[in-house]
Amino acid sequence: MDKMYSKEELQNRINDEIVRRSAGLRARKPGELYAPIDYSLDVGGKRLRPVLLLMAYNLFSEEIEKALPAALAIEVFHNFTLLHDDIMDKAEVRRNMPTVHLQFSENSAILSGDAMAFLSYQYLLECRSGRMFEVASLFTKTALEVCEGQQYDMDFEHRLDVTEAEYLEMIKLKTAVLLGCSLQAGALLANAEDETAQQLYDFGINLGMAFQLQDDWLDTFGDQKKFGKKIGGDIVTNKKTYLLITALEKASEENKKILDNWLNSTDFDAVEKVASVTGIYNQLGIKELVESKIESYFSEAEKILAHLPVNELNKKFLIELMESMLGRRS
Amino acid sequence: MDKMYSKEELQNRINDEIVRRSAGLRARKPGELYAPIDYSLDVGGKRLRPVLLLMAYNLFSEEIEKALPAALAIEVFHNFTLLHDDIMDKAEVRRNMPTVHLQFSENSAILSGDAMAFLSYQYLLECRSGRMFEVASLFTKTALEVCEGQQYDMDFEHRLDVTEAEYLEMIKLKTAVLLGCSLQAGALLANAEDETAQQLYDFGINLGMAFQLQDDWLDTFGDQKKFGKKIGGDIVTNKKTYLLITALEKASEENKKILDNWLNSTDFDAVEKVASVTGIYNQLGIKELVESKIESYFSEAEKILAHLPVNELNKKFLIELMESMLGRRS
Repeated sequence: MDKMYSKEELQNRINDEIVRRSAGLRARKPGELYAPIDYSLDVGGKRLRPVLLLMAYNLFSEEIEKALPAALAIEVFHNFTLLHDDIMDKAEVRRNMPTVHLQFSENSAILSGDAMAFLSYQYLLECRSGRMFEVASLFTKTALEVCEGQQYDMDFEHRLDVTEAEYLEMIKLKTAVLLGCSLQAGALLANAEDETAQQLYDFGINLGMAFQLQDDWLDTFGDQKKFGKKIGGDIVTNKKTYLLITALEKASEENKKILDNWLNSTDFDAVEKVASVTGIYNQLGIKELVESKIESYFSEAEKILAHLPVNELNKKFLIELMESMLGRRS
Repeated sequence: MDKMYSKEELQNRINDEIVRRSAGLRARKPGELYAPIDYSLDVGGKRLRPVLLLMAYNLFSEEIEKALPAALAIEVFHNFTLLHDDIMDKAEVRRNMPTVHLQFSENSAILSGDAMAFLSYQYLLECRSGRMFEVASLFTKTALEVCEGQQYDMDFEHRLDVTEAEYLEMIKLKTAVLLGCSLQAGALLANAEDETAQQLYDFGINLGMAFQLQDDWLDTFGDQKKFGKKIGGDIVTNKKTYLLITALEKASEENKKILDNWLNSTDFDAVEKVASVTGIYNQLGIKELVESKIESYFSEAEKILAHLPVNELNKKFLIELMESMLGRRS
């Protein structure tokens, strides 16, 4: 019987490896280049993407050590995107710590971010696999798509006419493809069939879409205690979420005027704005609409997993992870 | 007899390929991401690095089309570094055109630069070579080194105690390794022996060192008409060049005081500063010192090329390129 690893076991293994690698990074010169990288990796996070890679790998092989460098590569790449996105979005806090461009400098965040992009390839290429060419091509295609997603996200800030389809394409590129890539890369490194690896990619896309829509949902309709952030932040900052975009598409002339007013007003009471916009969302049934959209991605992900030609027992931890990500306990 | 390509033939082939690819890039979405990439590649330049890659390839094979995607990869990577360096250095002009962060925006230069880094891997991976793993590893190591070089360069701005050895290491990382990488990658893709490919790398390092030191030399001692830029720019902006660093190391207490004064003064007459600092350089024999340093790298490069186990006739265009880069006609 092959050893199957739980989410917690994989997270621990990944964190141990990051600690081990960090010591190496801190010894590299120039220190000014590597310190921000160490800072960003050390801050933590759920390590979702490397866990997905290792879980996909573990469906076909128990020798997860062989895929560990690739898992690290995905995590370093993800953190690279955070460094640069945080500059572009002028974000000040990330995981309760100052963002890299504030803690160090903007130039540091640019250059150390660049170094992380290449470091991710260095880690990836450590995996001596016969499928490396496919994995590196997949990783590269995905990285470009993530850049495209970030560009759309920035473009949407200045637009009021973003359609639902455009929004879904944006979150697919910005978030979902990297989950798909993690899973497919894990499967390829374990030498799975191309078709099976592709199914895991599709599973990741659906998981990612549901996950991102849930994030939008939680920001407005979530439970403050569980959510961790202040409810309504997206409404206050005019963030183009799935909620706002579908509301603008569905709103009556009168409600559209009210929404437009809030979107254009710079001097307002935040509590009043959140209550008014949420009120319109409720009138339009946006909550249920998003829930049904999440549900459709979730059940598509479930269906793909059910058809995956892998021992049912081995799917257990992947199903658990999906359910915990989407706040479900079946 | 194999077909050997001259510098001009290779430049033309590379430029044609860039035009062809640019059409593809302009069709990609989102346009806001790809337009700055197209702008940056279209502006031109000497295409030195891809020419070196193809010349090294051409030493062993005439099928240069097979190495063309890798040559493009190096050029796209080089332009990526320019986009990000220009933000960090607050540069306003590049190749007589506004820099990307001024022509578009700083966020554009960050994100489109990132996309170029990944685009360079996408092009590289188009080369279906049995040596691809080695080439991708070399390229990745080099990319990290270039980041290290840029970090040192920025660090040196705030230091007055940079040693000659530190400066040489910085220009090696920032400039020379990419020339070495281009040559080695070309040789590897043509399936040359590892040792021969390594010799070409070493040749590139020496060429790059001589080239960068010559750039420092030209800025102070060059002929304004041939140089294209205003003579003395490095002195006016306190740039830590090989000239300034060796002068600070060699200067008498009195001359050191004069140099320090110029370095710390913010209100000065540029012509007077250039004349005074150049006068000190002349007193200390800096001109001859740099010339002898350039000469030693140049003759080391020549020596490596002479020992390269390749038909002498085939070395012709590489020797010509080296001589034209270093302003010599033997």
